[in-house]
Amino acid sequence: MKKGTSASSGIGIGKAVIVEEAELVIKRENVSDVEAELGRFKGALEQSVKDTEVLAADLATRVGEKEAEILQGHIMLLSDPMLTGEIENSIKNDGINSEFAIETVCNMYADMFASMGDELMQQRATDMRDIKTRMQKLLLGVRSVDIASLPAGSVIVAKDLTPSMTAGINPANVTGIVTELGGRTSHSAILARALEIPAVVAVENLMEQVKDGDDLVLDGSTGEVMVNPDAAVRAEYETKRDVFLKEKKELEQYIGKPSVTRDGVQVEIVANIGKPEDAEKVLQYDGEGVGLFRTEFLFMDRTSMPTEEEQFEAYKKVAIAMNGKPVIIRTLDIGGDKEIPYMGLEKDENPFLGYRAIRFCLDRKEDIYKPQLRALLRASAFGNIRIMVPLVTCIEEYREARGLVEELKAELDEAGIAYKKDIQVGIMVETAAASLIADIFAREVDFFSIGTNDLTQYTMSVDRGNKKVSYLYSTFNPAVLRSIRHIIACGREAGIMVVMCGEAASDPMMIPLLLAFGLNEFSMSASAILRARKMVTEYSVQELQAVADKAMSFATTAEVEQYMKEFVESGTV
Amino acid sequence: MKKGTSASSGIGIGKAVIVEEAELVIKRENVSDVEAELGRFKGALEQSVKDTEVLAADLATRVGEKEAEILQGHIMLLSDPMLTGEIENSIKNDGINSEFAIETVCNMYADMFASMGDELMQQRATDMRDIKTRMQKLLLGVRSVDIASLPAGSVIVAKDLTPSMTAGINPANVTGIVTELGGRTSHSAILARALEIPAVVAVENLMEQVKDGDDLVLDGSTGEVMVNPDAAVRAEYETKRDVFLKEKKELEQYIGKPSVTRDGVQVEIVANIGKPEDAEKVLQYDGEGVGLFRTEFLFMDRTSMPTEEEQFEAYKKVAIAMNGKPVIIRTLDIGGDKEIPYMGLEKDENPFLGYRAIRFCLDRKEDIYKPQLRALLRASAFGNIRIMVPLVTCIEEYREARGLVEELKAELDEAGIAYKKDIQVGIMVETAAASLIADIFAREVDFFSIGTNDLTQYTMSVDRGNKKVSYLYSTFNPAVLRSIRHIIACGREAGIMVVMCGEAASDPMMIPLLLAFGLNEFSMSASAILRARKMVTEYSVQELQAVADKAMSFATTAEVEQYMKEFVESGTV
Repeated sequence: MKKGTSASSGIGIGKAVIVEEAELVIKRENVSDVEAELGRFKGALEQSVKDTEVLAADLATRVGEKEAEILQGHIMLLSDPMLTGEIENSIKNDGINSEFAIETVCNMYADMFASMGDELMQQRATDMRDIKTRMQKLLLGVRSVDIASLPAGSVIVAKDLTPSMTAGINPANVTGIVTELGGRTSHSAILARALEIPAVVAVENLMEQVKDGDDLVLDGSTGEVMVNPDAAVRAEYETKRDVFLKEKKELEQYIGKPSVTRDGVQVEIVANIGKPEDAEKVLQYDGEGVGLFRTEFLFMDRTSMPTEEEQFEAYKKVAIAMNGKPVIIRTLDIGGDKEIPYMGLEKDENPFLGYRAIRFCLDRKEDIYKPQLRALLRASAFGNIRIMVPLVTCIEEYREARGLVEELKAELDEAGIAYKKDIQVGIMVETAAASLIADIFAREVDFFSIGTNDLTQYTMSVDRGNKKVSYLYSTFNPAVLRSIRHIIACGREAGIMVVMCGEAASDPMMIPLLLAFGLNEFSMSASAILRARKMVTEYSVQELQAVADKAMSFATTAEVEQYMKEFVESGTV
Repeated sequence: MKKGTSASSGIGIGKAVIVEEAELVIKRENVSDVEAELGRFKGALEQSVKDTEVLAADLATRVGEKEAEILQGHIMLLSDPMLTGEIENSIKNDGINSEFAIETVCNMYADMFASMGDELMQQRATDMRDIKTRMQKLLLGVRSVDIASLPAGSVIVAKDLTPSMTAGINPANVTGIVTELGGRTSHSAILARALEIPAVVAVENLMEQVKDGDDLVLDGSTGEVMVNPDAAVRAEYETKRDVFLKEKKELEQYIGKPSVTRDGVQVEIVANIGKPEDAEKVLQYDGEGVGLFRTEFLFMDRTSMPTEEEQFEAYKKVAIAMNGKPVIIRTLDIGGDKEIPYMGLEKDENPFLGYRAIRFCLDRKEDIYKPQLRALLRASAFGNIRIMVPLVTCIEEYREARGLVEELKAELDEAGIAYKKDIQVGIMVETAAASLIADIFAREVDFFSIGTNDLTQYTMSVDRGNKKVSYLYSTFNPAVLRSIRHIIACGREAGIMVVMCGEAASDPMMIPLLLAFGLNEFSMSASAILRARKMVTEYSVQELQAVADKAMSFATTAEVEQYMKEFVESGTV
């Protein structure tokens, strides 16, 4: 048995399909007809751009804007006249074949980027090699494994999955994904969770030890992978798989049930979404609303700002789909790790501590923030929309945003345009500063939403994407838990709603603590809603107080985690 | 009158000396003797490297390692075979003059770096242009203004001061510095403060409005600059200057006085230092000890790790110089914005939230941390050394560091080597996490040191070097003040010493608050000690409680700052 990092839960059983890039042999050849060769190069270049555009569009619809973004970067490189000009010069001046000219020029740039040492440049180096290979394959007529047409029962085995490789995955035929590289937040992992395919990543030496056609069994919850297991093991995991699927099925009985604890405390379990279309899945899993609608998608994968009208249509669509249930919409949260090329944002030295989210929006009121707020207000006429301001650190930021909302309301009144008069405006509490003065905020804002991903990151001073320090990143850290408890207490004291929309809200070990702290609303991915509701119905908030007191008495993350694990497994304090 | 940003206090009066780079005219010329031209280029290259090395060494001794680091980067670029090889190729293949080959190749790289959009690359682009100019000047025999030999009474006027330009400033002859670019933390500003020369930076359109030989008057405290003022104004500022110098002189009466408030509360005023030699200045200004000795300097400007022996000698030197007074030595705090090439640290995507300080040291126990701790223990036999661990976020980090100290003590006992048996080991409290669980830390650590620069940065989620968001960076923010008050309260409750070593400790508007909160020790640059002592003796901690209560009642930074400003100016609540 091998052990990797669990990336997407469920049991996968099937035949290994090794997915890897073919080794290309590139030789230098002299060409006599330079013009014809230039034509050949330009043809391959155009085709590469087209192929990449198709892949990007496909990825954006089926998987997400984040994935498609990488391919947009490839298109930019392919369209860079400095690069293509240099390749053409090389073909012309040296009288050589396109494949070799591409090899030389792209490698030169890739090496140069790679030598620059920073992560962004490393990514550019990878991108440069990726487009090099794509053009050369087209020129040489080499085709990769066609992931779109894998037979049923396939387990994809790869070093890592690139966006180009994963674009065609069909969840009906792929029962599992295992990769040698990556982590819980890598491309492969995010993709697997989005498609609900069991997956394990970061399995050492995977490629040396698995060959095409091997029988594979993987447990996406524990990170276990077995190659050609004996019949007994296979049977054991088939049972596990059936149990997993049965439990998933059984959770369906919680559809339509209220989210009420044994001692009668009512909470709401709502969903995080990224696109208007996601509302469908929220309703399928009986979400009581939308706790976080990320509006970034509207701004991504395009070359100019969406108009107020386009935004209005998107927000209206969610509002109508959710049919009166509350929909919390977060205003634009870009910068940090999320870039949008046409906005001309420079890369900050510390993006997470930089010019992002509300800081950026308040600096761009006329062209960005007011059109978005106006679209939100107009859409609020069609459902129960609430506006949420991200990354707030001081009360002035909230007051300024709120002021814009009031100003726009007056404008709409004047123009006779409908909107929800009593629309709520709340804030994400996700910085240490906002937590420390949560009582001050609670006097003015309409609701709190605790963003545990950023709150943990900022409280611990840890970039959550940095593997070298990720051991420090845990919401169970005593400091983070104190911060969360404090925010909820301040919200309750002031009588405003407190929702949590970070990963922690659906964590079985965290839910008992959040109930004890008095959280009102839990927001999570739609597919986690029913399991969370089941847990809520099994607890008594009063009984959980002792659990929370005990958990808060520890000095270390490890002790808290150990204690909560034992509590959840045994059900006793 | 013009207004800029105050960068170094004091009044400067004198004649303007415009310091700017001469405009070079670079023409393409064909050379017949390619070998001779190559020799010419290599000569200029070698000379450039040598000149830069001399400048760097000079800067490192006279000003600081940070400044010298930039020049080290220039040397690296000048030694890059990719760059020099390409220039040589261009001379050889095109048969052209060195100046033009340098122009073409360096511009190509500079433009490429500049087009990459991130700040690091922008800096590389600037560096590339800087070395280009240096080589071309050498080839053309053009000399810049020789700053080292300016006449007495000169006020330096420049677009911005580069490390190469400032290396030779003689404070005896330079009475002021004014620049068009820069900010409080820019190179010119830091240099001016280090040399105690009055300075104003960021004066718009400065270069268009001042010419060589103009009479200039500047107030480094207010940011005012006057060009050719009339006699009355000049006289007014001469008086101001005399008052400033007199006050500076008068502060000397506080040498040898205790730092005790009117109502008898004794505190300690100590110094931040960066090199063993700085101890001299601490004693000159009667510092009661060293509150922060940064050990990074030992590791910088060299190509390999300092040995335990070298470190021991440096720590011992400070311990002996301070003659029994407490010396808090911070263990290696690199990463973040401080890089050391030979340690092979990769650049993090968010350096301030990455692999740095104690995180890095605990990962490199054998080759880095244990030798440093062992050197500190050995040096503790020669004075009152205390060990301070930076960037702690969880108790396990402290326990691990403390465990190493105990392990090394046992080793030294075995070997019969002397050390201070009861040596104190404390922590920097500079992350939100450490502040939130300061009560837990206070049970185990020997002292707290509040690092307000990082604490403010992390609490506000603001990179303090990022101009676009620096408006959020203030220690007077209510959230930051609450955090500071909480840390001090936890320390006092547990009976351990709390020192503050960030910029805030010497801020006249902050000192009353810190006294009211109960801070024990104030650590600052040596030249600020006497003024701080004067302030301390003028206050009553009991009377300050009302001031602190009022200050803490505000919701915004602006209100707190306004209130404290009024209090300090009027002396009434």
